[in-house]
Amino acid sequence: MSEFKRVGLVARSGSELVRDSLRSVFALLEARGVEVLIEDNAHNLLQEFSGASYTQEEMALRCDLVIAVGGDGNILGAARCFAPHGVPIVGVNRGRLGFLADISPDDIDVGITQVLDGNYTMEEHFLLEGEVSAKGLEEVPCALNEVLIHSAQMPSMLEIDLYIDGEFVYNQYSDGLIVSSPTGSTAYALSAGGPIMHPSLDAIVLVPMFPHSLNSRPLVIPGNSEVKIVVGSHTGTNAKISFDSQLEFEIEPGESLVVSKKSESLKLIHPPGHNFYGVCRSKLDWASRKGDS
Amino acid sequence: MSEFKRVGLVARSGSELVRDSLRSVFALLEARGVEVLIEDNAHNLLQEFSGASYTQEEMALRCDLVIAVGGDGNILGAARCFAPHGVPIVGVNRGRLGFLADISPDDIDVGITQVLDGNYTMEEHFLLEGEVSAKGLEEVPCALNEVLIHSAQMPSMLEIDLYIDGEFVYNQYSDGLIVSSPTGSTAYALSAGGPIMHPSLDAIVLVPMFPHSLNSRPLVIPGNSEVKIVVGSHTGTNAKISFDSQLEFEIEPGESLVVSKKSESLKLIHPPGHNFYGVCRSKLDWASRKGDS
Amino acid sequence: MSEFKRVGLVARSGSELVRDSLRSVFALLEARGVEVLIEDNAHNLLQEFSGASYTQEEMALRCDLVIAVGGDGNILGAARCFAPHGVPIVGVNRGRLGFLADISPDDIDVGITQVLDGNYTMEEHFLLEGEVSAKGLEEVPCALNEVLIHSAQMPSMLEIDLYIDGEFVYNQYSDGLIVSSPTGSTAYALSAGGPIMHPSLDAIVLVPMFPHSLNSRPLVIPGNSEVKIVVGSHTGTNAKISFDSQLEFEIEPGESLVVSKKSESLKLIHPPGHNFYGVCRSKLDWASRKGDS
Amino acid sequence: MSEFKRVGLVARSGSELVRDSLRSVFALLEARGVEVLIEDNAHNLLQEFSGASYTQEEMALRCDLVIAVGGDGNILGAARCFAPHGVPIVGVNRGRLGFLADISPDDIDVGITQVLDGNYTMEEHFLLEGEVSAKGLEEVPCALNEVLIHSAQMPSMLEIDLYIDGEFVYNQYSDGLIVSSPTGSTAYALSAGGPIMHPSLDAIVLVPMFPHSLNSRPLVIPGNSEVKIVVGSHTGTNAKISFDSQLEFEIEPGESLVVSKKSESLKLIHPPGHNFYGVCRSKLDWASRKGDS
Repeated sequence: MSEFKRVGLVARSGSELVRDSLRSVFALLEARGVEVLIEDNAHNLLQEFSGASYTQEEMALRCDLVIAVGGDGNILGAARCFAPHGVPIVGVNRGRLGFLADISPDDIDVGITQVLDGNYTMEEHFLLEGEVSAKGLEEVPCALNEVLIHSAQMPSMLEIDLYIDGEFVYNQYSDGLIVSSPTGSTAYALSAGGPIMHPSLDAIVLVPMFPHSLNSRPLVIPGNSEVKIVVGSHTGTNAKISFDSQLEFEIEPGESLVVSKKSESLKLIHPPGHNFYGVCRSKLDWASRKGDS
Repeated sequence: MSEFKRVGLVARSGSELVRDSLRSVFALLEARGVEVLIEDNAHNLLQEFSGASYTQEEMALRCDLVIAVGGDGNILGAARCFAPHGVPIVGVNRGRLGFLADISPDDIDVGITQVLDGNYTMEEHFLLEGEVSAKGLEEVPCALNEVLIHSAQMPSMLEIDLYIDGEFVYNQYSDGLIVSSPTGSTAYALSAGGPIMHPSLDAIVLVPMFPHSLNSRPLVIPGNSEVKIVVGSHTGTNAKISFDSQLEFEIEPGESLVVSKKSESLKLIHPPGHNFYGVCRSKLDWASRKGDS
Repeated sequence: MSEFKRVGLVARSGSELVRDSLRSVFALLEARGVEVLIEDNAHNLLQEFSGASYTQEEMALRCDLVIAVGGDGNILGAARCFAPHGVPIVGVNRGRLGFLADISPDDIDVGITQVLDGNYTMEEHFLLEGEVSAKGLEEVPCALNEVLIHSAQMPSMLEIDLYIDGEFVYNQYSDGLIVSSPTGSTAYALSAGGPIMHPSLDAIVLVPMFPHSLNSRPLVIPGNSEVKIVVGSHTGTNAKISFDSQLEFEIEPGESLVVSKKSESLKLIHPPGHNFYGVCRSKLDWASRKGDS
Repeated sequence: MSEFKRVGLVARSGSELVRDSLRSVFALLEARGVEVLIEDNAHNLLQEFSGASYTQEEMALRCDLVIAVGGDGNILGAARCFAPHGVPIVGVNRGRLGFLADISPDDIDVGITQVLDGNYTMEEHFLLEGEVSAKGLEEVPCALNEVLIHSAQMPSMLEIDLYIDGEFVYNQYSDGLIVSSPTGSTAYALSAGGPIMHPSLDAIVLVPMFPHSLNSRPLVIPGNSEVKIVVGSHTGTNAKISFDSQLEFEIEPGESLVVSKKSESLKLIHPPGHNFYGVCRSKLDWASRKGDS
């Protein structure tokens, strides 16, 4: 019998393809007699379902597992909500293979069944949280991929002083700085010239965005480092902090942002056979032909 | 009283500056009544010293501490010999600050005295070892910075298949591949476009050298990964493996190289105040002026 | 006798250092009996001067030469105004050597005197103009360094189709695209990974900003190419075009931007001894010690 | 009637595919009554042909056109021989589209017929020649893609002083320096991080290979520049110069290499419809889907 007795369903809104996959998942869960809680977006897509809908926060308190139908972007939002409650997530991708959502629509029956049968692997992906001095936010915002500090209006310069674990590292003029988890290393940080990092690494990578200085390089530091960024006075009109490109906050010269690893991780579930290097090969078009020697 | 009762002295041969620093260190050790074993190179420089000279292997069995006078290159060679025996090393730099050898000639008295008094920090730097299939070497060669596989004659192509922990990663045409420790990330791997990695990270970085494919990127993987590189048949005249650019071996198409973390680490000793980010700032000319905000 | 009989003075507003240099230049011009027209900003700084002030447009019709006191940013603005009228510019830098403004405050007397005596070199720097479909601007805006198309709100994606001389080149998802002149190749384009280009080249470089695709590279094309960028529908909230980071216009999905070389060039004057590679060496901290071989 | 009355045939040795294409070309030429001169390699493949074989040098004096069957590497060698005599080359590719050889095996009949009918475009590709001080070579060697100076034994350092048009540019420690034509910008220079350059540009790009200094960048200079590279004394065991990776010469510390544009260009012929950006898109896997806006 499955360890997952009450399963939450979340979905990216909009597409017909998402709706089809959502229906397949829902039908499978019902057929197995699993209790299903459905989130607002998913509820709108599943019009034939007459039951209640729930917020992600309500689901986080009650579910044993969440199935996210959509894509990697969909999982970013879910991760910030469910990770703190320890609820694992498994992702169904609406088409192209994702780094996070790796069950393709054609494999829903097999993949979800394997997961419900306990035949899966679980990866821990840590999140980064970012605290802005003197903001007094009730909740410290977090990100699965990256915390980004950047000039709010392009193209406009950002000046920062960087400190790691209290040690001054450098003063930098640039468009911004990406503080990325290993999970985020294949997302925005990769476009910015950062290295690809295996998701199991306990490490953070700092990637400068268009630094004025030619000797800046991506910097990989221990996962438990405290990264403090002080905004300098040579910054243009204003600066912003962005979490997974989904949450945004303003920050003023003189204020500082402190980024560190969040204590709770995202538990991401994969059906058997998932392999990070295979996903890289597929998503990044790495040569997959083995030599003939 | 010092925990270091018998200290070995090794030196880079040649320069007058090295000789001066070597004399300062020797005088200090004698004044404190520490027993000193002197290696061949150092012995040639210290002509006033009439005692015996030792090989590094002999010293490794008998010393509690080794002082290396020269530079980072000097420590690379010493590390491969002393690390397996657990003998810690402290480096005196012949001039410019090094990543490994960080006592400047002017600070010999203060720095070495602090170390002998037990006032120091010890960093563990892991080494990489590289085994070539069917070579049957008595001893598996190792490197503190990087194991490099490359075409022996420039410019000539190397074809490889890369496997990590038994999983196929990619087939690659390039000039070679750098397998670097965090320690080596500020050496050759940095010139090749790799990220800077904090020396305490348990991670390995793979940096392709002039890959034909434009979507190759540096790849950071867990330190306990097994990296297997199979040389393909489209390789030019011949290929070589290099350890810290100091030891070299040939490798043929069809043969493979397996790189993994060595079980024993280098114990590197620093006087108080050593900080990795400060060394980066100095060696890489990072802006050290803090903003005035 | 000097060919420059009526000289315009423009300045960056604000700093006391600019004021001092401005006074030096003004005194020198008066002593030589050259007629001087003073622009508003400069007029505010030269409070002892009771004469009229002029707009840059008025000066462009009447001056034989313009002296710009400030820095490279100052010259960018002046170039867009004076280049179309063929009025040459010479720059006095407020401190650190610039790529464009290369007379240092200490060399004002010697440098300006040489220029007035006809002892100078003149470089032609072409400008880029950028026309937005269906905007119907009275004047086509131009840039000395670069025309930039980017998402207006960071971090938000831009989708473009690129055409050169009517040929489709690629479809790209990124943060934006830099279309830079050789002059701009040492400015923003350099931070973005573009090559350094000699200012005399008749070429344009296209530098993608954080492209999603890993096989994008800077592309150098002939100076007389017509670069057409069509904004795609997968673009985030909105997009902007920026000229030398000083003028900005909005652009919508479906609209297009056409960038091409402007017919009139900036005539930039340097005292004798100016050399592009020397400026690179100084500004980019290239090793200037010649080997001892 | 065709302007090409006597046509030379050269081929890459070896493959059965090359032989098939060679036969097709030969049959077509015979059917049109064109006189055909066959080079040694091609002669070996065309066993049914009983006529004489020629060296490339003999052919260069007598042919109006050369058809090269093989790939881009094949054309590199032919270019060095035929360009000085002004004999145009058209390339038949043995399979995958090339930057230089762009007639695919399936299009031989149509493409070669178009060319013989005078329906073609001709591109001029300049070559680089490289003179080594005190070598006294009878003939100055040249390259279509790139002249490369590098340490002969990997990994071993090269120290150089770079001068352009007599001006000192920088002192550099690296693995080497690539001096590339626009034609070569999509070959080895691209792997080394250089920009892609349109083949019609009158420009040379210098790409440092793994420079020790982090602020080195590719440098694009006018095509008529004289590039002088002086080998420094901190160079490892020995250094080499390579032309298109096909010709090699040794160079000693203290000697210098002078690279400049060769006066005669390669005349490369393409059937109608050839477009550089289209070849880039195909060879570099650029996204070719136009946006739907």
